[in-house]
Amino acid sequence: MILELADITIHPDQNEAFEEAIQRGLKTVISHAHGFEGFKVNRCLENRQRYVLQIFWTTLEDHTVGFRESPAFGQWRAIVGPFFATAPTVQHFELVAKSDAVKG
Amino acid sequence: MILELADITIHPDQNEAFEEAIQRGLKTVISHAHGFEGFKVNRCLENRQRYVLQIFWTTLEDHTVGFRESPAFGQWRAIVGPFFATAPTVQHFELVAKSDAVKG
Repeated sequence: MILELADITIHPDQNEAFEEAIQRGLKTVISHAHGFEGFKVNRCLENRQRYVLQIFWTTLEDHTVGFRESPAFGQWRAIVGPFFATAPTVQHFELVAKSDAVKG
Repeated sequence: MILELADITIHPDQNEAFEEAIQRGLKTVISHAHGFEGFKVNRCLENRQRYVLQIFWTTLEDHTVGFRESPAFGQWRAIVGPFFATAPTVQHFELVAKSDAVKG
């Protein structure tokens, strides 16, 4: 499994609308993508314009090819893109280690 | 619960030694801290010098005061600090939403 980590900066004072939109986009678009395994949305305490979105994919290509080269990518960006103050920074990760019980 | 997210850049070609050290530091130091609830270590696919460390704490102050102002912080930094190419970027997050089943 691969972790997509997207570092997002939104325009100021749009937290409530963005949080509704990103959950809608995840549920109506991304969760139907091939290889999608789960997501988390986290809001930064020190910088209210910053969010980190984690999406778990079965393989790297499920995201970079299967999703990004499908019409679903445009649908997703139409929902969340208007909130972005800058282009999100997106990279992919593999798990090295975790504690036995992660409650998060 | 609070997520501490540390964005780490290590010196090149030290992946194996760093991965041993960070796991040792987590298990021997951080996992004994008050309020510690779990961790994940992720290695970046696009940039092999980049790691993202997630630590889950019961409260923000368990990390920022309880841990950082204790002798354990120095013990932790002695183990992992020598690998850092730059000072890690550390911020804290709260969960906005997650999918019903996150396998990660």
